[in-house]
Amino acid sequence: PARIPHHHRGILGYCKALGVPLEVQVNENRAALLQASTGPVPQRRVQADLRGLIAELAAKGLERGTLEAPLDEPDLEALRAMLRRFGALGADHRYHGSSRAGWDRPPGAGPEAPRALPPLDARLLLEPTLWAGAAFTEGVDYAATMLQPVGGMDRIAAALATALGEALVPGAEVVSLRRGEAGARVRWRGADGMREETAAQVLITLPAPLLARLDTDLPEARRAGLAALHYSSAAKLAFHCARRFWEEDHAIYGGISWTPGEATQLWYPSHGFHAEGGILTGAYIWDDDLGERFAARGPAGRAAAIAADGEALHPGLGREVSAPVSVAWSRMPRAGGAWAEWTTAQRRDLYPLLRSPEGPYHFAGEYLSWLTGWQEGAVLSAWNALEGMA
Amino acid sequence: PARIPHHHRGILGYCKALGVPLEVQVNENRAALLQASTGPVPQRRVQADLRGLIAELAAKGLERGTLEAPLDEPDLEALRAMLRRFGALGADHRYHGSSRAGWDRPPGAGPEAPRALPPLDARLLLEPTLWAGAAFTEGVDYAATMLQPVGGMDRIAAALATALGEALVPGAEVVSLRRGEAGARVRWRGADGMREETAAQVLITLPAPLLARLDTDLPEARRAGLAALHYSSAAKLAFHCARRFWEEDHAIYGGISWTPGEATQLWYPSHGFHAEGGILTGAYIWDDDLGERFAARGPAGRAAAIAADGEALHPGLGREVSAPVSVAWSRMPRAGGAWAEWTTAQRRDLYPLLRSPEGPYHFAGEYLSWLTGWQEGAVLSAWNALEGMA
Repeated sequence: PARIPHHHRGILGYCKALGVPLEVQVNENRAALLQASTGPVPQRRVQADLRGLIAELAAKGLERGTLEAPLDEPDLEALRAMLRRFGALGADHRYHGSSRAGWDRPPGAGPEAPRALPPLDARLLLEPTLWAGAAFTEGVDYAATMLQPVGGMDRIAAALATALGEALVPGAEVVSLRRGEAGARVRWRGADGMREETAAQVLITLPAPLLARLDTDLPEARRAGLAALHYSSAAKLAFHCARRFWEEDHAIYGGISWTPGEATQLWYPSHGFHAEGGILTGAYIWDDDLGERFAARGPAGRAAAIAADGEALHPGLGREVSAPVSVAWSRMPRAGGAWAEWTTAQRRDLYPLLRSPEGPYHFAGEYLSWLTGWQEGAVLSAWNALEGMA
Repeated sequence: PARIPHHHRGILGYCKALGVPLEVQVNENRAALLQASTGPVPQRRVQADLRGLIAELAAKGLERGTLEAPLDEPDLEALRAMLRRFGALGADHRYHGSSRAGWDRPPGAGPEAPRALPPLDARLLLEPTLWAGAAFTEGVDYAATMLQPVGGMDRIAAALATALGEALVPGAEVVSLRRGEAGARVRWRGADGMREETAAQVLITLPAPLLARLDTDLPEARRAGLAALHYSSAAKLAFHCARRFWEEDHAIYGGISWTPGEATQLWYPSHGFHAEGGILTGAYIWDDDLGERFAARGPAGRAAAIAADGEALHPGLGREVSAPVSVAWSRMPRAGGAWAEWTTAQRRDLYPLLRSPEGPYHFAGEYLSWLTGWQEGAVLSAWNALEGMA
């Protein structure tokens, strides 16, 4: 994960308790772009024109008597006033454009009044990249305020490791689990060869695909269920840029641009504004098919494909980016995928089985929560499992 | 000003050139509150339910044939899909509530699926504090990304002062301006008594109310115009809080809550998250009548009135706040008001006069721009005046 919603109290509580400083992650930026068929459009323009179009449609509906329960005149006027403000409509309840969309002639210190951009062709607003991109940060886990640890997400893991001290054995790869009379026997490969330990209870936090493949004596139904759980093929690619061209040329400070291309999302850094260079996340791919296509390319092929998508959003981007680094979670030996994606049927039939303890074995991880893919899901799942072990 | 929009390139350019570090100012926070007649409501809930209500009205309108230019079926379905996503509507194009509004039963690691809050009574959404507060950050100068200098807005002035060095004479109060053969004579009161200097050109950046009252030989029409320009009676009050109760108790990280009370806005700090204490801006009053009422109270009266408004948003706030500090710009001897507010007629009849030079006199300030109240307006006005002096 690259961000923390403000209401994920579990992981934020660890940040506070462990002294991991936080800063704002800019998830929504009205200067960021949405890739339309005609070229990139700033989000502010899409947002404003969508609101104008929809509020106008709603106002027209009122004129045709769409209300099921008729309102008295004061309430009707309150509703109209709300629609005018919502959509920046004129007194005629029609949308004629708004400064919310940005400026055709920006406000300055000259003699002439500023002039707002005219509305976009409504047909353009029907392109899914535009309306889906514009609605993205309405989601409860994507809406402001979004946070990030200063210095990167691994500052949380590092702080946890420090707090755990010698209780944590880094680099220990578990190779088998067996039940015994005194609990369970865990064999692992450490820096000094094979080791094993027996414990009355074992909390297993491996991702489902890895646990499914591990040498265990878990019942066949559970192992089949773990293997059946789909994990996302999400992927990311980042570039180094010697120049923050997004800030210098476009006044883009953080946020996300969206493209229908393979790159899907282009993330601008939310920190280090006005620094000399910066890291640009050139791609954050969610779709499984796109993620697999990306994963199958070699490093150079990945960078070339993503730079081409970025070039459409930012002409000249290809000359600005260097040192690509990418990760396709479906190819990560220690992950087996980015996050669990339950089907409705699996939530009903499989989730109760996978979240229940099995003799000495207890289970936790983001996949055993309703917040898959989020650190908060892993935290809540761990707390839930610990209650069962008490 | 307390914030800088990302597209105010002039003032941001100074920040970059002078090395003033920037951080994100959280202007919109869906966890912040809107004070309804029934009590405070989180903005996420108002935002989601407004979008749902309006998208549903628009969809109903489509069913009644409100489109002036009929769409073919693929476009109509694209429009319906857009409305569903915009408002989080069901497949029936009706709004049944959405997780965007927040959770009745939050997602955790338990057996039960999360459950979204039910929609608010639509009548509640017609209260202006709710719909106006929810639309606030749609404004082009209020939409993300918003920025602030690390350490406070005066870091810009301090950096400018450092860069100017001895060219800047601090504490010099101009007492009169007179035209002469060689330009203009400026008399001022400095640390070592009265001084005067003659210059071929003088750039006057005093706020209009102060310049109107100054002993000058400006023509009567200009002085009358300067005096006629209305300046806002905006005001602010801040408290110290030993505990960041807004973060600890409500997961509010930055942003603004709105109340119909005198306090108008309550600002939470956008920096220092999880620190032990913090500064809470208990009031940011915009309305002139409310601002004058606030200004007329004594310091204790101001704090008591604002704490009472805050108590309605955050029951118990009164026990958390201390050390109130307030400013009413209409009472500030060096300001004469918060910012200029032009009428349409004044923009037409007076603005051309006030922005034009007068012999050796040139004029600049936020009031001589279309961005009154913003540092950017003052910067652009200064650049404009300097062009006339070249």
